[in-house]
Amino acid sequence: MSKNPDGKQIKVGILGATGTVGQRFVTLLAKHPWFTIHVLGASSRSAGKPYTQAVMWKQTTPIPSVVRDMIVRECHPEHFTECAIIFSGLDADAAGEIESAFRNADLAIFSNAKNYRRDPSVPLIVPLVNDSHLSIIPQQQALQNPPLKKGFIVTNANCSTTGYVIPLRALERAFGPIESCLVTTMQAISGAGYPGVPSLDIIDNVVPYIGGEEEKMEWETLKILGGIADGDDGMKTFDMHARHPLRVSASCNRVPVIDGHTMCVSVRFQQRPPPSPQQVREALVAYTPEAQSIGCPSVPVHAIFVHEEPDRPQPRLDRYYQDGAGVSVGRVRQCPVLDIKFVVLANNVSIGAATSSIINAELAVLKGVVKVE
Amino acid sequence: MSKNPDGKQIKVGILGATGTVGQRFVTLLAKHPWFTIHVLGASSRSAGKPYTQAVMWKQTTPIPSVVRDMIVRECHPEHFTECAIIFSGLDADAAGEIESAFRNADLAIFSNAKNYRRDPSVPLIVPLVNDSHLSIIPQQQALQNPPLKKGFIVTNANCSTTGYVIPLRALERAFGPIESCLVTTMQAISGAGYPGVPSLDIIDNVVPYIGGEEEKMEWETLKILGGIADGDDGMKTFDMHARHPLRVSASCNRVPVIDGHTMCVSVRFQQRPPPSPQQVREALVAYTPEAQSIGCPSVPVHAIFVHEEPDRPQPRLDRYYQDGAGVSVGRVRQCPVLDIKFVVLANNVSIGAATSSIINAELAVLKGVVKVE
Amino acid sequence: MSKNPDGKQIKVGILGATGTVGQRFVTLLAKHPWFTIHVLGASSRSAGKPYTQAVMWKQTTPIPSVVRDMIVRECHPEHFTECAIIFSGLDADAAGEIESAFRNADLAIFSNAKNYRRDPSVPLIVPLVNDSHLSIIPQQQALQNPPLKKGFIVTNANCSTTGYVIPLRALERAFGPIESCLVTTMQAISGAGYPGVPSLDIIDNVVPYIGGEEEKMEWETLKILGGIADGDDGMKTFDMHARHPLRVSASCNRVPVIDGHTMCVSVRFQQRPPPSPQQVREALVAYTPEAQSIGCPSVPVHAIFVHEEPDRPQPRLDRYYQDGAGVSVGRVRQCPVLDIKFVVLANNVSIGAATSSIINAELAVLKGVVKVE
Amino acid sequence: MSKNPDGKQIKVGILGATGTVGQRFVTLLAKHPWFTIHVLGASSRSAGKPYTQAVMWKQTTPIPSVVRDMIVRECHPEHFTECAIIFSGLDADAAGEIESAFRNADLAIFSNAKNYRRDPSVPLIVPLVNDSHLSIIPQQQALQNPPLKKGFIVTNANCSTTGYVIPLRALERAFGPIESCLVTTMQAISGAGYPGVPSLDIIDNVVPYIGGEEEKMEWETLKILGGIADGDDGMKTFDMHARHPLRVSASCNRVPVIDGHTMCVSVRFQQRPPPSPQQVREALVAYTPEAQSIGCPSVPVHAIFVHEEPDRPQPRLDRYYQDGAGVSVGRVRQCPVLDIKFVVLANNVSIGAATSSIINAELAVLKGVVKVE
Repeated sequence: MSKNPDGKQIKVGILGATGTVGQRFVTLLAKHPWFTIHVLGASSRSAGKPYTQAVMWKQTTPIPSVVRDMIVRECHPEHFTECAIIFSGLDADAAGEIESAFRNADLAIFSNAKNYRRDPSVPLIVPLVNDSHLSIIPQQQALQNPPLKKGFIVTNANCSTTGYVIPLRALERAFGPIESCLVTTMQAISGAGYPGVPSLDIIDNVVPYIGGEEEKMEWETLKILGGIADGDDGMKTFDMHARHPLRVSASCNRVPVIDGHTMCVSVRFQQRPPPSPQQVREALVAYTPEAQSIGCPSVPVHAIFVHEEPDRPQPRLDRYYQDGAGVSVGRVRQCPVLDIKFVVLANNVSIGAATSSIINAELAVLKGVVKVE
Repeated sequence: MSKNPDGKQIKVGILGATGTVGQRFVTLLAKHPWFTIHVLGASSRSAGKPYTQAVMWKQTTPIPSVVRDMIVRECHPEHFTECAIIFSGLDADAAGEIESAFRNADLAIFSNAKNYRRDPSVPLIVPLVNDSHLSIIPQQQALQNPPLKKGFIVTNANCSTTGYVIPLRALERAFGPIESCLVTTMQAISGAGYPGVPSLDIIDNVVPYIGGEEEKMEWETLKILGGIADGDDGMKTFDMHARHPLRVSASCNRVPVIDGHTMCVSVRFQQRPPPSPQQVREALVAYTPEAQSIGCPSVPVHAIFVHEEPDRPQPRLDRYYQDGAGVSVGRVRQCPVLDIKFVVLANNVSIGAATSSIINAELAVLKGVVKVE
Repeated sequence: MSKNPDGKQIKVGILGATGTVGQRFVTLLAKHPWFTIHVLGASSRSAGKPYTQAVMWKQTTPIPSVVRDMIVRECHPEHFTECAIIFSGLDADAAGEIESAFRNADLAIFSNAKNYRRDPSVPLIVPLVNDSHLSIIPQQQALQNPPLKKGFIVTNANCSTTGYVIPLRALERAFGPIESCLVTTMQAISGAGYPGVPSLDIIDNVVPYIGGEEEKMEWETLKILGGIADGDDGMKTFDMHARHPLRVSASCNRVPVIDGHTMCVSVRFQQRPPPSPQQVREALVAYTPEAQSIGCPSVPVHAIFVHEEPDRPQPRLDRYYQDGAGVSVGRVRQCPVLDIKFVVLANNVSIGAATSSIINAELAVLKGVVKVE
Repeated sequence: MSKNPDGKQIKVGILGATGTVGQRFVTLLAKHPWFTIHVLGASSRSAGKPYTQAVMWKQTTPIPSVVRDMIVRECHPEHFTECAIIFSGLDADAAGEIESAFRNADLAIFSNAKNYRRDPSVPLIVPLVNDSHLSIIPQQQALQNPPLKKGFIVTNANCSTTGYVIPLRALERAFGPIESCLVTTMQAISGAGYPGVPSLDIIDNVVPYIGGEEEKMEWETLKILGGIADGDDGMKTFDMHARHPLRVSASCNRVPVIDGHTMCVSVRFQQRPPPSPQQVREALVAYTPEAQSIGCPSVPVHAIFVHEEPDRPQPRLDRYYQDGAGVSVGRVRQCPVLDIKFVVLANNVSIGAATSSIINAELAVLKGVVKVE
């Protein structure tokens, strides 16, 4: 197994450990080479109970033995002071206050919640795309009152955004700015958590609407694919892709699929003539994000797997490839309206949620943003 | 019930009567105010048997009593000479030869098969859109050798094309030419016939590919929405929307839905500034195709039903509205990349297949293209 | 349309009118030949709003025009005094108190809730089975304090029980007492109401457990199929099939089906030798419940439709036959362990819920139990 | 990894390697500690192609690298002479002749096909139940003309039979003969192979019939749970549980589940009083088949996993536990008609198919029935 820089086990805590994303954190972290689950946090209803009694386990693998009898704690910072890293799988209605309190207690939080994604000092990081945005952390720490030494919040993106910005990033790296992007999603029910989507609403059905999702995709894409600008006042700001304006149009649909968001994407490049489908395919295959080159243990071998078969990727067949940590792209072809179109599949509960937070934390450790004692 | 021009019962035949589309023809025609099922045609395997024994009935209503004991015939013109109209639900591998033989026998065929859709003398008619294309029939008859008096072939469009060209037509009528259209479909399994899609391929899955479907949508749209040009040689030709070039990009997906194709559509108009979402909504509601104004009995009250709820249309809830003879549109809103985007739902087995052929035949009767004796 | 005894329109109210069962009551009663929807009752959250705004409509037909603008009332008896009949689609947590209050106000309630099913003075009526149990109503009225003239509660059975007691009753009428019955159900998600079963729990899955359902089936079957005994004290009691003890074993499963409960039933008769499969088939076809012979307008032509095809009934194909008011039976054959086994399909939202209450009310009108002024 | 008796790699061939069961054999054998895939056999249509081109791969893990470029052979014995073991995933229409030809060539075949299950000299072995039936092999070899030294056929059982005879066997070992068993199955679509069940037949549906399945379950159970009798003529025969007659009644249903057969089972014991639910639970947990005690590498730790939660086992959550090599039992409780009822879940593509054949082969190696050179 890979070693972290100091060869030490790093203690981590999980907020919202009994929820859907929390269960996924538990499953992944129980076998992580660097991180050791030290505290499980959940609501007061669960606190004081062993994890097996507090949780309604919905994973297809059994509860890991290391957490079975661990007593669940309330989400108060005092229970987590020994943790170098806090993973948050909290729901949005709880995440705002709790994550703020944890940061105030000088703790480093990697959150899957949406609450701080639009905060101008919080990086919104898709680990295979824009880990360079970690450079805003010192400014975030300096802006707190009192300023922090170790505490901060890093968020990851919406599960739909995450999947499709990875190939977009690969294309921008290879061919320069994208000018327009039209994406239509077919999203899995697990993206809505548990109990989530009522079965009467989705069996034998498509729901062509997911509240707030289109706005999230259109906005988050700009923050993630944009750069960081240095202001005259010495302050860094996210530039929202402003130097090369990018228009994004998202149409989001819920379909009766358990895991895995499928997306039909069309893009138009600034570069004329645009790249050919074959050039696009090669650029996607060649894409190597920094998280791979610096050795994050949870990154997949193929950040982007490119299918040649005409009918792939498919969620049921491809979502668990590489444990869902990469994305699959297929059907790269010309678009008669924009330039190029293709299909993306991303596992919304892995790279689209918990796996992203974990790789973000690995990046932060390797780059020294998280201080491991 | 409405009367046909002459107040007579019109005898009709059905080719491929035991298949998926054929069963739908049987169901609809058994209760039709003008048409009487006179002959049922199927393969030699079925010929000679009563319909109830020949068919593997898969409709949710029982086999209509008028056809239960009708003896199925082979698809030879001599069995159908008394029929003023032939409806064809044949598979593509049989339709080519059989429909040609029937036309040669001076019979009027309304076909759901794809074989003659690209024929330059065969109209491809979506009944709520381009019934004016029936004007090519005399030329089609004149071109046969020997020329025909009554026989011809009219085809209807692919089930996906049918659904979305209805609102496109409404928009072009109100706002002038559309310049670009990007459509992503989520298509029902019944669109593939029976046995069609294996359950192992589609439960808990999306298949982002349907062979030939994208090409059909991109090509058929131009023939349907285009006009008919009169050549210097006196010959009419389909102009393929050439005076105002229209670019169409289709991405077709199969989803685990039984009936009803859902489509996310974005359009760009030539007209600047483009119409607002509210103007688009009003134009869709106001759209009245000729089939309504001249009194076809199978047309719906609302050619296009516009939903105001944010999460409609949905296939399971809306596909059977008006017996599936109209289309539903919802979520009309601005598109950040093109001008306007919206969601269309069309019942692929009704307006997308048998119902279209039947309304086409009603139009042909009312316009005197079919000669009823 | 059929006339009620006095040829008058009968005003009815609906409790829980915005819920799943309530929507079904609305749909059916809006087109009922005798009953006119006069008041819609729901929670205080809905009261004061027009029905279209209060309801989250989930039926596949539009909201009937007669109720669209009707103002929803709270479930207080004073709003319902003009109603000769009250249909209750209330949830169990509300039904207990409200239905009692309505009865105290001398109103006649036909309830789909479970609360009073085990009450020794309340009949539990499956309309195609044991309408004779209406004879307990005078005793129920006399037992109230003060005694009632018109008010009472009639309940219908659990949706699973309803479906399979109809063929059981037909068999007992033809062949005498059944001694043992083993039933395994595959129940639709709509049986759990809305939002009901989370999609993550049931897509690509079977849940072999429905809380309390097996106990309900085992107990309700005895009350329904049993008779009424006259005690020495002049009091009537339900005999729970005690003269011929009947053992029932139910195993209840939830499956990913929208509507329609499928049940595999095995029975052992007291009569030796037992009837043959063919005799059983004939007895099922011949079964004519009193609700048919006295002319209830909502009863189906076939109380029990017997399929000959080896693979029927199936919920998707057969649940809407006769508007779901009858039951389908198929695969009648010998059971190597008990005597005879067969498959039953019952539409849980029609005969299993609202339709049963409505036919019960029709029976009560025709028998003079409901006083129509 | 465990060692086989001789510490050698054992070369194996796979017949029907491109089919559904064949793909599962490939997946499992590619990582097997003893067996090495040496030859892949398929139809003449596939022969001569590399496996990746011959197969339409439908597994959720990629094609194992060791077979990707292996050239597929026709199913003729001469290509398989170096194989000590042949696994057959052939369809029934091909298996009869081919398996016979292979046996005639003195090859040892472990077949998943049904063709030889009723052969009086072929053992029908569920590896966690009746490996003692391997003792019939010498007789099978002696009966061939000419007699064989190494060749034979061993079959495994139908996927439904396999799952439920494991707990039945555990109960008979603990409590003596079972007298009656009534089982209702809810079977996954993968049990029908590919393309198998049309999606139009099973989405939002239950099909209460699977051709021949009930007969198979009722008959195979007797052969598997019965013993081997020694005749006066020195010939062994399967006694079909004749000393303690066992009546089995099976009702088989297809449900929209991808993998995993769920079964509701009721049993009556000869022993009076019968065991309590708690005694049954303990007996199931304690059950240790010989395949575990002698060290077959593919057997699971828990032959029978007993769930305590009221709503388990469920196919989606429990089918992949232990790689699907064991079975899950839950809801052990009293049956009001027979004695005890419970729910069984078995992964039909693992223990119900390929895994069974592989463990059978491991048993045969360990017992010396397969001669490894």
